[in-house]
Amino acid sequence: MRLAGSGRAMDLGNTRSERVPKQTLSLRERQQEQGRADIIGAALEIIAESGPQAVSIDRLAEMAHMARATVYARFPDGLDAIISETYRSIGRDLTQRCQSLVSPATPWREVLMTWAREFFAVSAQPRVGTFYNLVGPRLVAASGATGGGSEATLQVFVGSLDNAVRAGELDSSAPVRAIARMLVGALRESGMAIARGELDGEESLEAFGWLVGALTATAGR
Amino acid sequence: MRLAGSGRAMDLGNTRSERVPKQTLSLRERQQEQGRADIIGAALEIIAESGPQAVSIDRLAEMAHMARATVYARFPDGLDAIISETYRSIGRDLTQRCQSLVSPATPWREVLMTWAREFFAVSAQPRVGTFYNLVGPRLVAASGATGGGSEATLQVFVGSLDNAVRAGELDSSAPVRAIARMLVGALRESGMAIARGELDGEESLEAFGWLVGALTATAGR
Repeated sequence: MRLAGSGRAMDLGNTRSERVPKQTLSLRERQQEQGRADIIGAALEIIAESGPQAVSIDRLAEMAHMARATVYARFPDGLDAIISETYRSIGRDLTQRCQSLVSPATPWREVLMTWAREFFAVSAQPRVGTFYNLVGPRLVAASGATGGGSEATLQVFVGSLDNAVRAGELDSSAPVRAIARMLVGALRESGMAIARGELDGEESLEAFGWLVGALTATAGR
Repeated sequence: MRLAGSGRAMDLGNTRSERVPKQTLSLRERQQEQGRADIIGAALEIIAESGPQAVSIDRLAEMAHMARATVYARFPDGLDAIISETYRSIGRDLTQRCQSLVSPATPWREVLMTWAREFFAVSAQPRVGTFYNLVGPRLVAASGATGGGSEATLQVFVGSLDNAVRAGELDSSAPVRAIARMLVGALRESGMAIARGELDGEESLEAFGWLVGALTATAGR
């Protein structure tokens, strides 16, 4: 597990391998996938403008320029499935954006800070931040499905801390996986507080920098 | 807010003020309160033995040695209210146990570590840990009520870090409230992982010690 995590983290700039399968899809499958993406894009726009409770099949059809029947054809499970998928798409976009901002050469601290900065930026967005941090996780928990976004973040953080150990900037006795999990929890909690308007994104980023910087400082002990 | 938080944190050993109101209750009120406590105690026992899905009015009545009608009289909202209250009672007991283990003279790091150790101990308990970390929060979130337990922990952590600043062991520029919130998130995430059996309590405590110790180390910067 730990090796796999660190392998992924070292390969952060490369998301190409995930895109290859698309090229094997037929025209019809690609059109259907594009239709789903359009619906999710419309849902995101409605959420950003008016919140998740404003998402309806009618409004999605109107905004995505398709018939109601087409919306149902692309998402046979209806509105709940669309909302859940929209939630997951925010996490995927966030991960891809973070990955595009770092390379295998990016110092481990900067990798952690990039993830925090982008996550806090999403969390601070009106309505979208609330949806991503508070509403979405409940929906997904209620449906019994797993989120997935924080598992990906955990892998990246484990990889970053492994790199820190390799670089001699974090003591090799550090319980890397448990610390990485705590840093993920630190982000999650702050994201919820930012979305609720209880905490400022800037201050949160500073606090995260404090924790990460502190970890570094212990290397000299 | 910050001043109030730190005031409570400095007064950790004293829970007497919270007990005074009970003495103003009539005999009947005290009996009703005892009845509620007995039902919650029975629910806790059932959860520890067989999990929350095994809690039923029948089993509660049997275990608390009272009639079904008495159970309903003490909790007119029925089973859901009993389960929610049981969840909150675990948090209250945890807080009281932590408070009894520290005094105003306890060094701030030890206060933080005490909270972590006791929380991880609950999280590692079979069934109870799952209920406290995974099932209960969802129930409370679904009912729209607030948890409360982590707000109390947040206040204690803010107070501890304020004490660290006062003692010159944490730089006064540290964003205390945001860091405290991140430490609460670190605990919450680890508690869930411990309850799911994905993380070891000992390793989590070590990781938390790493974060807290790291904070201290930055004082010398």
